[in-house]
Amino acid sequence: MKNSLLLDTGSGGRASRRLVAECFFRHFDNPLLGRMDDAAFLEDIRPPIAMSTDSYTVTPLFFPGGSIGTLAVHGTVNDVSMLGARPQYLSCAFVLEEGLSLELLERVTADMAKAAKEAGVLIVTGDTKVVPCGACDKMFITTTGVGSVFADPAPSGHNAQPGDAVLVSGSMGDHGLTVMRSREHLSFLTDVASDSAPLNKMIAAVIELAGPVHVLRDPTRGGLAATLNEIAEQSGVSLVLEEEYIPVRESVKSGCSCLGLDPLYLANEGKCVCILPAERAEAALAAMRNFPFGAEAARIGEVTATGKKPRVTLKTRIGGSRLLSMPEGMPLPRIC
Amino acid sequence: MKNSLLLDTGSGGRASRRLVAECFFRHFDNPLLGRMDDAAFLEDIRPPIAMSTDSYTVTPLFFPGGSIGTLAVHGTVNDVSMLGARPQYLSCAFVLEEGLSLELLERVTADMAKAAKEAGVLIVTGDTKVVPCGACDKMFITTTGVGSVFADPAPSGHNAQPGDAVLVSGSMGDHGLTVMRSREHLSFLTDVASDSAPLNKMIAAVIELAGPVHVLRDPTRGGLAATLNEIAEQSGVSLVLEEEYIPVRESVKSGCSCLGLDPLYLANEGKCVCILPAERAEAALAAMRNFPFGAEAARIGEVTATGKKPRVTLKTRIGGSRLLSMPEGMPLPRIC
Repeated sequence: MKNSLLLDTGSGGRASRRLVAECFFRHFDNPLLGRMDDAAFLEDIRPPIAMSTDSYTVTPLFFPGGSIGTLAVHGTVNDVSMLGARPQYLSCAFVLEEGLSLELLERVTADMAKAAKEAGVLIVTGDTKVVPCGACDKMFITTTGVGSVFADPAPSGHNAQPGDAVLVSGSMGDHGLTVMRSREHLSFLTDVASDSAPLNKMIAAVIELAGPVHVLRDPTRGGLAATLNEIAEQSGVSLVLEEEYIPVRESVKSGCSCLGLDPLYLANEGKCVCILPAERAEAALAAMRNFPFGAEAARIGEVTATGKKPRVTLKTRIGGSRLLSMPEGMPLPRIC
Repeated sequence: MKNSLLLDTGSGGRASRRLVAECFFRHFDNPLLGRMDDAAFLEDIRPPIAMSTDSYTVTPLFFPGGSIGTLAVHGTVNDVSMLGARPQYLSCAFVLEEGLSLELLERVTADMAKAAKEAGVLIVTGDTKVVPCGACDKMFITTTGVGSVFADPAPSGHNAQPGDAVLVSGSMGDHGLTVMRSREHLSFLTDVASDSAPLNKMIAAVIELAGPVHVLRDPTRGGLAATLNEIAEQSGVSLVLEEEYIPVRESVKSGCSCLGLDPLYLANEGKCVCILPAERAEAALAAMRNFPFGAEAARIGEVTATGKKPRVTLKTRIGGSRLLSMPEGMPLPRIC
């Protein structure tokens, strides 16, 4: 552990995992935390409840397709959903900078209210701290969501099995590229927008129509690459993906090639990865495609037994094969 | 509503209440949020769950008697307890400044782990965001707690009844004065320390021994004055206190008189206000006094029917009477 915190520690990649393992897990050690899923499974409460929290620090506060307010609701709703739970209640804590425009706070609040209504969740408790000018950058929002787990067994990053199909619910990289565009004023990226969306109803439909799934995850910070590497490691399996089946919008593809980025490492805020027995993959895809933000759902690969160590491999369009490694370093902080 | 946010909006006084009412409640409107207790009562989950969240932004991060880490656990554990619930699980979200000393982060984490262990709660899920140097002041921590409600009926700020006794579990003002001392290097205040403590076990004992209570609140930001004014307003009652019965340590009294402060407006982090039928007051006090941080528990006044409007009155030692009003303005930001 180095002596001071670097930006990449918040990236969702290797450095994040080191901090979590070496500092937080070591001190807070308990089996529920140790599962490292998107939400915690509160098994002592009956029926079991899923709980998840995220701080939102995105800059700029508004971007095409959403705002810090929509993210703060969608992100936490989605994390609770990833445990096969129905998100019901959110708490919401604001840290606000003295001098913040109240009109801006009101716009963010209205975005949160609209997103909560769309997702069917209630914001039931909260907190507001105001810190002196300069002590935070405009506003940070932390939401925590809880909801009853309906999937039995509940999906977990530990449950991927060799032979399972790997699905994504739509195109990759939209959110990350959109935030970069907004922050850096990249005016040539005219047709990108965040994919921020609540996935809870889609997830409920998938489980209802396709039966229990092994893994659900939303590929946010670190993108698809980080999420699939985490799953491979947690489940002790390897994943083989077909590059040509991974949906990426043309606008994102061309933006990424201009900027030298890989869309598989960019954050998504309205997409999920779903891993389930191959024979039920088509039913799950059909369920996803019933929702506007699941229209481009695709089967992108499969789970295989692992060799020496868990890895994620991409079969490229030209017949080659490359390792999709865990991201190291931080291309873009404050995307969510 | 003015056009930009002032520091006193985070004070727990009138300005805080205006922001919450005019912005957050208007947009997030729902009956669970509208109760405005320390925690939300999630009645659709059976058995009902209490949920509470707070962001901790205290500066300095360490002070006599605690740290941002102990506060982040105690504060949320206490808020969940105030609903007559047994806090079981915490989530924990860090916003960290690039360049933060990892040794310092580790000390805070260890404090949280120790506090969680003492309170008997598990930290089960979390999030870490790292923002660039200058985008936040060292670290902010947001914890959210959930736990099963065991009190039936659950206490609420709306339930104070004329004739009820008003109790506090110990001395007032210790935390607020301690943070001020640490921040301003007031070296003459040598013998003050934060009262930061987990109240969950004490609360469980009170309800077990004295039966259901009408109101439980922890007088944090805005101190006893803000808390009692909130209760008076929510319940539509008045409160009459005897100044001489309100416990205030000699060191806090003399520190406050040097600095021109009123200890009844200073924050506490390990104390509760308990309002219950007068005939059960002695049993509740006896239960509190079984705990080290309840040793100075005292009956400080009573609830009366309200006149024209709810008010909190203090009978002074010299036989006079003064209004204890809701705090306005912000004597000291970032105390929790």
